[in-house]
Amino acid sequence: MNNEKLNVIEELESSVRSYVRSFPTVFTKARGHKMWDENGKEYIDFFSGAGALNYGHNEPNMKKRLVEYILDDGITHSLDMASDAKVEFLEKFNDVILKPREMNYKVMFPGPTGTNSVESALKIARKATGRTDVISFTNGFHGMTIGSLSVTGNSMKRQGAGIPLQYSPTMPYDDFVGSEDDTLDYLERFLEDNGSGVSIPAAMIFETVQGEGGINAARFEWMKKLSDICERWGILLIVDDVQAGVGRTGTFFSFEPAGIKPDIVCLSKSIGGYGSPFALTLIDPKLDELWVPGEHNGTFRGNNHAFVTAAESLKYWEDPKFEKSIQTKSELITKRLEKLIQDYPAMKGHLKGRGFMQGVSSDVDGFSEKVAEKAFCHGLIMETAGGHDEVFKLFPPINIDEEGLTAGLDLIEKAVQSAITAMELDKTPVGQ
Amino acid sequence: MNNEKLNVIEELESSVRSYVRSFPTVFTKARGHKMWDENGKEYIDFFSGAGALNYGHNEPNMKKRLVEYILDDGITHSLDMASDAKVEFLEKFNDVILKPREMNYKVMFPGPTGTNSVESALKIARKATGRTDVISFTNGFHGMTIGSLSVTGNSMKRQGAGIPLQYSPTMPYDDFVGSEDDTLDYLERFLEDNGSGVSIPAAMIFETVQGEGGINAARFEWMKKLSDICERWGILLIVDDVQAGVGRTGTFFSFEPAGIKPDIVCLSKSIGGYGSPFALTLIDPKLDELWVPGEHNGTFRGNNHAFVTAAESLKYWEDPKFEKSIQTKSELITKRLEKLIQDYPAMKGHLKGRGFMQGVSSDVDGFSEKVAEKAFCHGLIMETAGGHDEVFKLFPPINIDEEGLTAGLDLIEKAVQSAITAMELDKTPVGQ
Amino acid sequence: MNNEKLNVIEELESSVRSYVRSFPTVFTKARGHKMWDENGKEYIDFFSGAGALNYGHNEPNMKKRLVEYILDDGITHSLDMASDAKVEFLEKFNDVILKPREMNYKVMFPGPTGTNSVESALKIARKATGRTDVISFTNGFHGMTIGSLSVTGNSMKRQGAGIPLQYSPTMPYDDFVGSEDDTLDYLERFLEDNGSGVSIPAAMIFETVQGEGGINAARFEWMKKLSDICERWGILLIVDDVQAGVGRTGTFFSFEPAGIKPDIVCLSKSIGGYGSPFALTLIDPKLDELWVPGEHNGTFRGNNHAFVTAAESLKYWEDPKFEKSIQTKSELITKRLEKLIQDYPAMKGHLKGRGFMQGVSSDVDGFSEKVAEKAFCHGLIMETAGGHDEVFKLFPPINIDEEGLTAGLDLIEKAVQSAITAMELDKTPVGQ
Amino acid sequence: MNNEKLNVIEELESSVRSYVRSFPTVFTKARGHKMWDENGKEYIDFFSGAGALNYGHNEPNMKKRLVEYILDDGITHSLDMASDAKVEFLEKFNDVILKPREMNYKVMFPGPTGTNSVESALKIARKATGRTDVISFTNGFHGMTIGSLSVTGNSMKRQGAGIPLQYSPTMPYDDFVGSEDDTLDYLERFLEDNGSGVSIPAAMIFETVQGEGGINAARFEWMKKLSDICERWGILLIVDDVQAGVGRTGTFFSFEPAGIKPDIVCLSKSIGGYGSPFALTLIDPKLDELWVPGEHNGTFRGNNHAFVTAAESLKYWEDPKFEKSIQTKSELITKRLEKLIQDYPAMKGHLKGRGFMQGVSSDVDGFSEKVAEKAFCHGLIMETAGGHDEVFKLFPPINIDEEGLTAGLDLIEKAVQSAITAMELDKTPVGQ
Repeated sequence: MNNEKLNVIEELESSVRSYVRSFPTVFTKARGHKMWDENGKEYIDFFSGAGALNYGHNEPNMKKRLVEYILDDGITHSLDMASDAKVEFLEKFNDVILKPREMNYKVMFPGPTGTNSVESALKIARKATGRTDVISFTNGFHGMTIGSLSVTGNSMKRQGAGIPLQYSPTMPYDDFVGSEDDTLDYLERFLEDNGSGVSIPAAMIFETVQGEGGINAARFEWMKKLSDICERWGILLIVDDVQAGVGRTGTFFSFEPAGIKPDIVCLSKSIGGYGSPFALTLIDPKLDELWVPGEHNGTFRGNNHAFVTAAESLKYWEDPKFEKSIQTKSELITKRLEKLIQDYPAMKGHLKGRGFMQGVSSDVDGFSEKVAEKAFCHGLIMETAGGHDEVFKLFPPINIDEEGLTAGLDLIEKAVQSAITAMELDKTPVGQ
Repeated sequence: MNNEKLNVIEELESSVRSYVRSFPTVFTKARGHKMWDENGKEYIDFFSGAGALNYGHNEPNMKKRLVEYILDDGITHSLDMASDAKVEFLEKFNDVILKPREMNYKVMFPGPTGTNSVESALKIARKATGRTDVISFTNGFHGMTIGSLSVTGNSMKRQGAGIPLQYSPTMPYDDFVGSEDDTLDYLERFLEDNGSGVSIPAAMIFETVQGEGGINAARFEWMKKLSDICERWGILLIVDDVQAGVGRTGTFFSFEPAGIKPDIVCLSKSIGGYGSPFALTLIDPKLDELWVPGEHNGTFRGNNHAFVTAAESLKYWEDPKFEKSIQTKSELITKRLEKLIQDYPAMKGHLKGRGFMQGVSSDVDGFSEKVAEKAFCHGLIMETAGGHDEVFKLFPPINIDEEGLTAGLDLIEKAVQSAITAMELDKTPVGQ
Repeated sequence: MNNEKLNVIEELESSVRSYVRSFPTVFTKARGHKMWDENGKEYIDFFSGAGALNYGHNEPNMKKRLVEYILDDGITHSLDMASDAKVEFLEKFNDVILKPREMNYKVMFPGPTGTNSVESALKIARKATGRTDVISFTNGFHGMTIGSLSVTGNSMKRQGAGIPLQYSPTMPYDDFVGSEDDTLDYLERFLEDNGSGVSIPAAMIFETVQGEGGINAARFEWMKKLSDICERWGILLIVDDVQAGVGRTGTFFSFEPAGIKPDIVCLSKSIGGYGSPFALTLIDPKLDELWVPGEHNGTFRGNNHAFVTAAESLKYWEDPKFEKSIQTKSELITKRLEKLIQDYPAMKGHLKGRGFMQGVSSDVDGFSEKVAEKAFCHGLIMETAGGHDEVFKLFPPINIDEEGLTAGLDLIEKAVQSAITAMELDKTPVGQ
Repeated sequence: MNNEKLNVIEELESSVRSYVRSFPTVFTKARGHKMWDENGKEYIDFFSGAGALNYGHNEPNMKKRLVEYILDDGITHSLDMASDAKVEFLEKFNDVILKPREMNYKVMFPGPTGTNSVESALKIARKATGRTDVISFTNGFHGMTIGSLSVTGNSMKRQGAGIPLQYSPTMPYDDFVGSEDDTLDYLERFLEDNGSGVSIPAAMIFETVQGEGGINAARFEWMKKLSDICERWGILLIVDDVQAGVGRTGTFFSFEPAGIKPDIVCLSKSIGGYGSPFALTLIDPKLDELWVPGEHNGTFRGNNHAFVTAAESLKYWEDPKFEKSIQTKSELITKRLEKLIQDYPAMKGHLKGRGFMQGVSSDVDGFSEKVAEKAFCHGLIMETAGGHDEVFKLFPPINIDEEGLTAGLDLIEKAVQSAITAMELDKTPVGQ
């Protein structure tokens, strides 16, 4: 029966599809950190929709609210007309997120995808400064539409554009060169020397932890220094928090511990709460007022189902214990991965990332892909990341309980063992 | 009470918002062709989410299926993993739409917005041909992200990019120059003369009826000739059917009566049925196989709620009477608008468009905007279009009953009268 | 002996060389309209260095002045420092050319080539307007460096760039479409419709007669209308008079009979008089003052040998009889070519061009190339032009005497006969 | 009298002129390293036409040959037809320069300017690799036309383009960052990481000593390493030897001591010998054969007067003593400048450059400009360089005798003293 349905996909869906190739089964149900396929097989989901399901699948409170709303003939689609669902979301977002953090961003609804949020951020930054260039960083990932792709590093994705991608000098992310030198000293030399060939850009855009690029986490000092450089040179700072935001790294915004205040913040993925398409762009009010009404628009910029679930999801953040609990469980992940690396030297692993966005980079060619493959057999869904898929990447829901987390980590260890066996790596422990 | 909620929007939402300025009230409920605001005022909706609500608001069958699916913990978000909702949609789309029309496109899910579909179309066209340029047409509108914006004509939107938009020579749409000459003779001269400065492009992209550009309808002969030119020169043909498709002009695909077979078709807006973000790119299988898996992707390319409602919506098309009924009611709209233009010569009106995508272009500066404004006061929601908002544009749901349609048309006539009075135009009928 | 020297070229010179392939001999001496090769064979030169030798080879007065200057250790190279040779040239150019025509251009020395003049013109036009685009015309030719190449139509030359060429929408030159419609009506529609995808450009650049593009001569009314459009829309007008200027079409500037006053004029080729590298850009003083000193520069912008010969060459223009004589002899060329076309219907010829820049376009594939080849055998040097080399092109020196002119024309007739024989075309006169 | 002629320039010449502002007098005669103005004042020329007069002004042997050639009605202008002057030059260049160095480049004549040579180099590199990007280096200078300007670092010059300059990521030149790290390690990281945002380029282009950028000399090891990187990654290496070549740094090609073999070499300025516009592009034969005849061309690519003097100038290089003598005199310059820096600590000077291309960079704002200004008063012509004109730059002819050289150096010391006095800097020697 499985084959029949997968055949439908094989026959009718475009060959551009990818994840169905790594996880070749048909899913039918999901709840919390669990998914079931049509054969009733259960999976632990440490993928979480690549960060779009930080609260797990079909979270009960959101589900309840959403069903009520639909049954009640609430507005579904409204472009950017006013609906009560939108008003409620805006108030909740302001009360729970912005005000307590003393942030006074304007909230833009740019179309319901991360790339759309990034495109809107680039537009307003260019308009506000009258400059064309936006500095991006090595291994950054910001989306697939031409504007966002121009600030994305991955060469396969860039070549897909079919046209040269412009207006975006790439600078080295934290630790890119791997030397003692700070990559930001380098960057600033380019700004200060008027013969450097790099003009003062409209903005810089970066992720605090690079999800697709290999779970690279920039140091908070690096972020602070970057922010200072931007201020010194009159350059706008854009944080793309699409993947690292909404609690993924331990705080609502991933950049909070760095003590910086970006001019623009891009949010999508989990901001909708339930996995429905949704995105925000947070913009400094001084910049925001430069928009001409409708200068950036889109048919689905008002997805009211997402307004409803998003508003509900923010209740998690009303209680400070929630943030604490993410951080506590993060440490559990860290410790377990450190032990794993130590116990299985054959995989030549390095710990990467921060919070609920950690992973292991293996120096053994193909190893991490093998771990992900084996994990799927054992009933755990997990992705790889990095330019050569050298990282296996843990993305559990941030509201997972300890039991679920441990169960998942156990399966990962099992997958590592299977991968070592399959690749016939040396099982001898270190030092023997 | 109204003011309070609108104040929330004023205070918190970005100044880029636009429709809430034209329709300054807070909507709370909607069903079919009707909407209600928080004060209980009822509106007839001849806007239909700019074409995203062709089946009206909260269509009962889709609503029922959606609620069941949610209650049953069906998969909500799945990137491009396989879900039974996706399989069901693909089968239905193939059975009801593609097969009967002898089309064998591959179905790509490019991220849930029209602009994303266009970006994916441009990518595969460039990849398949190894060329960079894509010819677009005057007053075309294809989206707000940089790739789509490059093939969009509107100067305000283009300037919003903040960077020069490239790789897209613009050619004159049908009737652009207004002379006896066919604009396609002109286009072909540019292709055939190797000194024309225009290289053979990867593709041409066009809308059969230009929604944003002024409800300009190309003749079917023009489309056929364009298709022939593309074939003659080895150029791919992309139809952006995001707004004109899914029955809006009287057939499922707007280009069917022209007897052409585009290489790529972009669908979004009403393809999801219920107003939830969703988009497809239909691609000739020979082109489709050129994709590298994941070469174009996006977090929300699998919006399962939309799979469910989209599959349900296609049932409308199983019965050939549905298409007939759209066409019958289209004639009713045409006749009524023709009469309106005749009866109110002061508005200097011209009939525009096709099917359920008709409007009136007025030569009187500001008149159409005034009609839309008055219509809202009288309880009808309607948009303007064109470079100077010179067209008022009727977008009723395509499944509206005659009674609803007539009620809406009556309100439009009332609005026209009010506008004439407000602008102090001559009310004398023609010939007197 | 011939072979030996040509072998040196074959062996050492780049394969990009071209004319030596059409004229495979080694030239050693030249005077007026005659050249001699190493075997002492004499040639009539109706090529004139593609317009760089309007006064013929080694004109005696210029030669005398140049030798005196060199023997006297006059400054040879001076960048843009002041030399007495430069001062003398500026005064002469002002007295003989600008003042009598009531022109008050500033004279820029942009580096000693036509393409350099065009690049400088594009820069100042963009700077003055703050816009990026420059409209060019089909089959225009403006040079080989990237800026100039962007406004050049020829597809082979454009592809040579290896990068996409941007910022230059191409519009149809006079008579491009071949219909009754004026191509400028078409152009203006693009300017006036804000959805046309073509933004108001910084400038338009054109040649009054397109030399490389096929000896296409725009009507003077067309030029006037173009100039009016530019004025109406605040667009700068650039005439590239590199090939058509300096008397080639019958007046010093080729655009004089149109009664227009371009904002910028590019001159090179024959402006130096003797065939030494030299170029000028004439700029409206209001624009010129926007330059930052050194913003456009170049090592050879002060070629003093060319200052000397250029100043001397302008003496020709002191006597109004000179201009008259060009025009008289132009008519002789026209009549002879008309007769040729009539007498040899097999070549399906059409008269092209104006003044000393005329040619015959043949509808027979390869015919014009054959004529040029045969002409060379018979002792006449002549080039082809047009996208398919369909035009044979007469460029005698403008100071040639009637005897020389007739001798050349006789050889062309002989070459036409030889070509007809070689290609086995029907020699039967029309109507028989 | 002076004023009158300078007034002509003020009135008629474009405001873009620059050097006449630094050296406000009218020159009338020049010989060797000396120039005279109209008042008979003598100047020592340590500017040498920015490197275009490496053999001094009006060198007697070249002058003799040139005058004979002109008197004999030798071909002056020939596009790329064959002339005996061209053949003679090619043979001489091969015999004296290429063969003894075991180089087998093809010689392209790209139009008679350095920027034209660079444009042709970029074209063939892009064509040969099918790639668009060319890596350039901080503070590189390659010319003013759009292609060359794209690989030039200076921000004022770049902004002059009026359009964004593309296809040229800038990498740090040797010692740009000033840390212990090698800038090439940094560069290679960008090549080897497929997420770096920098694609493998068609070519890298650099100057061995950056003339305009501040007389920055790259170490020979750096060049060798750069060459190795290019080879490793299949990237073409272009040396722009327009300013540093033809003996300026002590060898004919400036890169000879590095033991590298660039794929393409750009030559102009002094390659013509006498200061007449001339340029060559030397191309590896395997690349060269990819050219389509005429794919890059230009009216003045055959400047026969320059062929004559260039061939004559190469006789200098027949005797190895010439190269030796340059190197010996270079040391004299080095020692004198080192002493100057030591003796006048107030100027906070640093020695820059190599061979006959040395200078002093002063950390005192405006000092170097003041030195150049004072030098002119004392009768010596000298330029400044660097992004803030912080370097005064010595460019004596390379065939100057010791007496002349010493006289010039004495004047420079005098100018330094005058500048210190004028700027009221501390005259106390170091350590007191």
